[in-house]
Amino acid sequence: MWTMLAARGWGAAGVRLTAGLRGCAQQLPAIGTEEGAAEAPGAGPQHPGTAVRRGVRQIILNCQAELVALQKCEPSFHPALAIVQVNDDDMLEVKKLAEEVGLHVVHICLPEGTATEEVVEEITKLNEDPKIRGLVLPRGLAVSDAAINAMVPEKDVDGITDMNLGRLVRGNLSECFMPPAASAVMELLQQAGLTRPLQRAVNSQPCWCGTGVTYRPDRFHQSDVIVVTSPAPEGLGEDLLKADTTIIAYDLPDAVFNSSSSPQDFCRNEPGPSHDGIGLLIAALQIKNTVESSTRWLKQQQHKRWNLRPLKLQPISPVPSDIEISRAQTPKEIGVLAKEVGLHPTDIEAYGRNKAKVKLSPLDRLKEQPDGKYVLVAGITPTPLGEGKSTVTIGLVQALGAHLDVNAFACVRQPSQGPTFGVKGGAAGGGYSQVIPMEEFNLHLTGDIHAITAANNLLAAAIDARILHEGTQSDQALYNRLVPTINGERRFSPIQLARLTRLGIQKKDPRTLALDEVKKFVRLDIDPSTITWQRVVDTNDRFLRKMTIGQSSTEKGFIREAQFDIAVASEIMAILALTNSLDDMKNRLSNIVVANDRKGQPVTAEDVGVSGALAVLMKDAIKPTLMQTLEGTPVFVHAGPFANIAHGNSSVLADKLALKLVGEEGFVVTEAGFGADIGMEKFFNIKCRASGLQPDVVVLVATIRALKMHGGGPNVTAGKPLSKEYMEENLKLVADGCCNLQKQIQIAQLFGIPVVVAVNIFKTDTEAEIDLVCQIAKHCGADDAVPCNHWAAGGRGSVRLAEAVRRAADQKSSLKYLYDLKMPIVEKIRTIAQKIYGAEDIELSPEAQSKVDLYVSQGYGELPICMAKTHLSLSHQPERKGVPSGFILPVRDVRASIGAGFIYPLVGTMSTMPGLPTRPCFYDIDLDSDTEQVTGLF
Amino acid sequence: MWTMLAARGWGAAGVRLTAGLRGCAQQLPAIGTEEGAAEAPGAGPQHPGTAVRRGVRQIILNCQAELVALQKCEPSFHPALAIVQVNDDDMLEVKKLAEEVGLHVVHICLPEGTATEEVVEEITKLNEDPKIRGLVLPRGLAVSDAAINAMVPEKDVDGITDMNLGRLVRGNLSECFMPPAASAVMELLQQAGLTRPLQRAVNSQPCWCGTGVTYRPDRFHQSDVIVVTSPAPEGLGEDLLKADTTIIAYDLPDAVFNSSSSPQDFCRNEPGPSHDGIGLLIAALQIKNTVESSTRWLKQQQHKRWNLRPLKLQPISPVPSDIEISRAQTPKEIGVLAKEVGLHPTDIEAYGRNKAKVKLSPLDRLKEQPDGKYVLVAGITPTPLGEGKSTVTIGLVQALGAHLDVNAFACVRQPSQGPTFGVKGGAAGGGYSQVIPMEEFNLHLTGDIHAITAANNLLAAAIDARILHEGTQSDQALYNRLVPTINGERRFSPIQLARLTRLGIQKKDPRTLALDEVKKFVRLDIDPSTITWQRVVDTNDRFLRKMTIGQSSTEKGFIREAQFDIAVASEIMAILALTNSLDDMKNRLSNIVVANDRKGQPVTAEDVGVSGALAVLMKDAIKPTLMQTLEGTPVFVHAGPFANIAHGNSSVLADKLALKLVGEEGFVVTEAGFGADIGMEKFFNIKCRASGLQPDVVVLVATIRALKMHGGGPNVTAGKPLSKEYMEENLKLVADGCCNLQKQIQIAQLFGIPVVVAVNIFKTDTEAEIDLVCQIAKHCGADDAVPCNHWAAGGRGSVRLAEAVRRAADQKSSLKYLYDLKMPIVEKIRTIAQKIYGAEDIELSPEAQSKVDLYVSQGYGELPICMAKTHLSLSHQPERKGVPSGFILPVRDVRASIGAGFIYPLVGTMSTMPGLPTRPCFYDIDLDSDTEQVTGLF
Repeated sequence: MWTMLAARGWGAAGVRLTAGLRGCAQQLPAIGTEEGAAEAPGAGPQHPGTAVRRGVRQIILNCQAELVALQKCEPSFHPALAIVQVNDDDMLEVKKLAEEVGLHVVHICLPEGTATEEVVEEITKLNEDPKIRGLVLPRGLAVSDAAINAMVPEKDVDGITDMNLGRLVRGNLSECFMPPAASAVMELLQQAGLTRPLQRAVNSQPCWCGTGVTYRPDRFHQSDVIVVTSPAPEGLGEDLLKADTTIIAYDLPDAVFNSSSSPQDFCRNEPGPSHDGIGLLIAALQIKNTVESSTRWLKQQQHKRWNLRPLKLQPISPVPSDIEISRAQTPKEIGVLAKEVGLHPTDIEAYGRNKAKVKLSPLDRLKEQPDGKYVLVAGITPTPLGEGKSTVTIGLVQALGAHLDVNAFACVRQPSQGPTFGVKGGAAGGGYSQVIPMEEFNLHLTGDIHAITAANNLLAAAIDARILHEGTQSDQALYNRLVPTINGERRFSPIQLARLTRLGIQKKDPRTLALDEVKKFVRLDIDPSTITWQRVVDTNDRFLRKMTIGQSSTEKGFIREAQFDIAVASEIMAILALTNSLDDMKNRLSNIVVANDRKGQPVTAEDVGVSGALAVLMKDAIKPTLMQTLEGTPVFVHAGPFANIAHGNSSVLADKLALKLVGEEGFVVTEAGFGADIGMEKFFNIKCRASGLQPDVVVLVATIRALKMHGGGPNVTAGKPLSKEYMEENLKLVADGCCNLQKQIQIAQLFGIPVVVAVNIFKTDTEAEIDLVCQIAKHCGADDAVPCNHWAAGGRGSVRLAEAVRRAADQKSSLKYLYDLKMPIVEKIRTIAQKIYGAEDIELSPEAQSKVDLYVSQGYGELPICMAKTHLSLSHQPERKGVPSGFILPVRDVRASIGAGFIYPLVGTMSTMPGLPTRPCFYDIDLDSDTEQVTGLF
Repeated sequence: MWTMLAARGWGAAGVRLTAGLRGCAQQLPAIGTEEGAAEAPGAGPQHPGTAVRRGVRQIILNCQAELVALQKCEPSFHPALAIVQVNDDDMLEVKKLAEEVGLHVVHICLPEGTATEEVVEEITKLNEDPKIRGLVLPRGLAVSDAAINAMVPEKDVDGITDMNLGRLVRGNLSECFMPPAASAVMELLQQAGLTRPLQRAVNSQPCWCGTGVTYRPDRFHQSDVIVVTSPAPEGLGEDLLKADTTIIAYDLPDAVFNSSSSPQDFCRNEPGPSHDGIGLLIAALQIKNTVESSTRWLKQQQHKRWNLRPLKLQPISPVPSDIEISRAQTPKEIGVLAKEVGLHPTDIEAYGRNKAKVKLSPLDRLKEQPDGKYVLVAGITPTPLGEGKSTVTIGLVQALGAHLDVNAFACVRQPSQGPTFGVKGGAAGGGYSQVIPMEEFNLHLTGDIHAITAANNLLAAAIDARILHEGTQSDQALYNRLVPTINGERRFSPIQLARLTRLGIQKKDPRTLALDEVKKFVRLDIDPSTITWQRVVDTNDRFLRKMTIGQSSTEKGFIREAQFDIAVASEIMAILALTNSLDDMKNRLSNIVVANDRKGQPVTAEDVGVSGALAVLMKDAIKPTLMQTLEGTPVFVHAGPFANIAHGNSSVLADKLALKLVGEEGFVVTEAGFGADIGMEKFFNIKCRASGLQPDVVVLVATIRALKMHGGGPNVTAGKPLSKEYMEENLKLVADGCCNLQKQIQIAQLFGIPVVVAVNIFKTDTEAEIDLVCQIAKHCGADDAVPCNHWAAGGRGSVRLAEAVRRAADQKSSLKYLYDLKMPIVEKIRTIAQKIYGAEDIELSPEAQSKVDLYVSQGYGELPICMAKTHLSLSHQPERKGVPSGFILPVRDVRASIGAGFIYPLVGTMSTMPGLPTRPCFYDIDLDSDTEQVTGLF
């Protein structure tokens, strides 16, 4: 009985063994070298027989146990073995064994003659499918090297890709798979007591044959071991073999395992060629590798400390410009960073080398994983120059991630391009605490603001066009155009059906609407004077603050006054920042109220028929953008709503993704715009309400400069030199100014969250000043107060802060909202004014009161409040520093962002369109066309 | 004399050899198997000696010759070997040999103790550098597996990456490198006449030692061959060896090569440990591999037929909607396509899975390569429905690339988002000839139009803000703000110095300007009535066609009338389409004329100080976007200037890149907007002038529908059902309408280019009609005329067209411009009107004439002409079909796009802002939030 071994899937014959490589020998069961040396070459045929059967049983039982253990840890984990097949083997053994063990099987049968390209395409899909943990390509003529190497090595449970072979040869057994046929031969050798070849059989590359016995006598000569089963092929004689070849004669009758009763269904007694003993052993070893692959993958999925490569920082002094620092650092390729923080290749969409959009799918994948610690960076009432919340945020994650070796993510806002070209001031942090490359951060990024602009302006154009068309057409003409007959058919679009439902019209057939129903349907009847939806542009264009539109004769006299806001002031930006999912965003976009009709009822984006298009325009913007800090730690950049008319916080989705990615022991540091009285209050009452998240620590940023201002120092004005009080030590001003710090600490404590004060050091600050602030802060109830020097020193300069934050995060805390949503709108406003700002009371203008009444009547009374107040004072008067008291907060007007989900009372005038100064910073900005480098950007 | 071999770079000892793998044996010099079998095991010490020296010499001479041959083909090719080193070996041998051979050497020495991450970073940079063709990591303690595997396998000339080892084991010798130490051992074996081990030594994985003799007795036992040089280490005795080990004692004195006189400088006589004979052999083999790597790379660079995997298309009938067809096809991952068409990974910046920006660097890399054939698709005078130029373009490349196996690239325009949401009509082609995914094509793409919008509007905002600031400040106040004192210093920015130069002021120190010079410098003195720079938005927003801006009190009464155009009408779009390089784009942006001053002199973007910022905003937009057709062939999408007020052609840069990528035998198919009288005329006279490119063939698209219209058929109106004449056979109308086709053929011939007429088949067309058109077309002088059915059948439906185009491209042709640029503006206009449109004469309004005079006086008289005329007739009257004659073309006004580089006369009124109809197509557009799929988009 001589023939070459032909297993169902893989035929293994003429196995050539290699060994002697580092790392391998150690991982084999120890075998006495003296035995090996003593072994005679050319041992005759041996009959392993029953031992193999027992071996298969044992493998399957072990795999079963291992999988059960895995699923105990991760109940939702259902790994699968995929078989992509071009020949017609039935693969019964492996499929049965897989089911036995509890693996799913995906069996893809392609017709004989399928082109390699198509096989590759199938394999590529399976590579990307996280459920598939093993991939087997039964050998057929059509399985080319290209197809084999298309498999990702971590799923190559047959161990046949180049990468796998290389790892095997190098002895990196923890990352490769031993080819099952080779393992099977080793098993046979071991059972035959042939330990000498075994010692050398660590790395093996079997000569495969197809299912049909592809008999290759030329290979025999090169073989160390030959396994033979049934009839001998012609021409195979001893003369073809080399001197020391081991020959194992192996012959198992069909269905040899049918007597086995446990585990159940183990190899049913089916006659025919599908039950080949050695094939079964190989199949079992494929299963074993698949289970091993599942184990490895699950281990990878589990939360762990990232293996993050920090970028080295060598700060120089004096600190160069932001763009010079940014340019001097080569960021990691974004795919590398993504992998480091546990994202899968299919989770991200790279936008060039340095940025990637991250899909929302990891939220689902990691939903069982506990969130990390959630840290909010807020500030005291700032000077007009800003006090460095962004640099503190970035410095803190650099300290945590690159110096304390903690998983740490920063979540920051995307800046408007307007100020980038208008008045100096980057938003990527500064000095040695930056998001890089800063020019990509500050310019188009991944196009989210452009998408918002497009969506916002489509809605605006649709409103005016609708007013024009309604104003110039009869009900019937409008109806005929809105619900046209196409190829003899007339149908409502889904968005029109939604409007009909809102109107209480239950009909679906356009031909059945009564005249009054047609009228109700076609006439939005928008009152142009109530339009609150403005156009936007991401440019500081002061001439668009107020204008008259529709003056072309084509608009037939439908002129009206209108304005452009800066793009980030769009309600769509606020929606993006507050949304929890794609579906939620679609709903919010539909709910946007753009105006009232002449009966005082709200007109929504869905009424205008454009909400689906808005969602389409925003479908990529909903994915946060991954970038990195100067020290190579991860940053999400996502959304940047105005901090006055909106809530000024980066997105809920970025925070949520980051909290899952850092895992239980990790930290997510997010930032709230303006001072704590505004940004932090909105963070708690609006953003946390929308997200359901609970922060663990508030970092309150203070500067000696701002404290001196609150203590009575001279005015601080952008673009003008600072007075000498700010350049010299002045402990009195500092001490007096700490009242503002105290108040902001108390505000944070009102919400039940521990506070760490971060004193952002400037080079003019003295040690005595810094010590004084830290002392007062702790006295006022801060959990800790530390200076930080991240601007000049990078993460190293914020290590003390990072340690303080870690300590504070260990406390138990519980978020308390400031007000109940069911409170009347005016009460909610009063609560904020009194408890946060320290006002005596509020005073509503008649206009404000009537708006409140309107919103209540429209059903919007239970929304949270988003105060539009100056950030330069706790009060409404920017010049009142420190902690003003005894004032009545005047509410001039009240507006609503229904889609975003808040009411915003206006305290004073809020500009929603910045202007360009006489010398905008674009004068300094240039592009070197040789190096393609941007110069002069901050 | 016993010790382990310690070469300078790599120490090789205890080499374990593997062989017997498929493919390998065949590639070795044939060695008689009988010799091998007869060889006795355990041959004693041998002394190869001089033969090795001779071998090294021969290797070096061969390498020299090979490199000379390579550089003969590619004179600019200077490959380099990079050495990244953490230990302190001097690497003299390999450096000397490299120089000897003519390789550059990049030697990076890192301090001992450098972290793996930093080594990886260095390696990553070298991976990306195309000059580096070999990468050697001298073994040190700090060289980890991670560092080794960071090398791309094609530069791993030491053959030590996992991938290389895997390929070696599999026997894929054409894609891997034999490790030099292993080759060296084989060389020694061969010289020693030991052919038996040689036969098995194909794949070898030496056990490396560091430079210091890392003596590993445990490895001896596993070794087939041991090479020993100077003193024997302790404990090495015969008892440690296995029975059949081959031992080669090898000892070469230092500087053994110093007697060599040719080639020059071959191993100078320097005493010391750096000249180790076996080390030298290994070094020579590293060099050999590096030269081999260079050869492989250069071969890859050479033009060749792409190995492109077409996507299978299975058209169904009736043809589904465009988006359904697009969605049913899974595009290749864009990196795969990029590789297929010869782009390097570093050439592209992926934007998600399906799109990538392509850098301009391949233009430089491939500059020696001849261009492919250049095909322009133009059309007859169309109906308002369009006649399918885009689908013909895509169908043609699908036929060429996926059916005729020719390298073929389509270059198409990026569509405005306005019409996407306004009036139905995709721009990605249609039916089974589309660019996919069509929703990405039609929406944000890679943000180019958004970038144009941002740049355009920044300039607009800057103009108005400047007028305001000049109007409200004294000269001195302006000067103080424009040239502020910062840290005691006062300096002009480069952009201001450029303005000073233009003003004829040669001073560089702001303190030295005289009062009148200050005045000249600070006052642009823009005449608001001459402002031609409009704001843009990529939305159909009719209410912005005319408006009054600056009405907010903050603008102090500086109100004026203005308008928004659709974004693609921006001159910046025309600049993007016509530019040849980054530097050229910067210049064009600087030259944009936005208005005149009150003296009638042009005010440019550079005068406004914003040209650097514009270039920065446009720096990514200049890179064409790579996408693919439904059949997986490549497409560049880049720029989409308006076809009326601009030239309506996709970008010069995309065409140029594509022409290099397809190579000499390949085809680039680009498209001109509107009918041939407009789009094609501008293609030749404006675009080809800007690019210097010469087209080879014009494909003229005709439809039975449009021909019937020209033959006297009833009006065709968008949105209304077609008359029955268009649904039934009517040979008379067709025949009569062919006059328009004839005229357009003649226009193409006027430029000296062969014409192929493509009859774009609709399902209502009859065979007789189609035959008639083809017959008439050929009779009128077309080189060929064929029907094409790509819409219903994909590329297969355009194979006849593709074959006709190939034949036509084989003709010699030579482009003749229609007019000389030195002709007076009016003469140029007249030439176009008479020779192209068939007008009797032209008539300029007084306004037009005075504008012509102004432009001539401003020095813009020698620019080409970009006619702004209706595309619906050869004349200026849209209702005149066929070939109108006897008309006087009225030129209402003349305008200039100085940055783009053309004068555009207005014939009639051109709308630059489309409007939304009563039922815009956004009613049908929606996003499925579960599948994230877009629905209802065409």
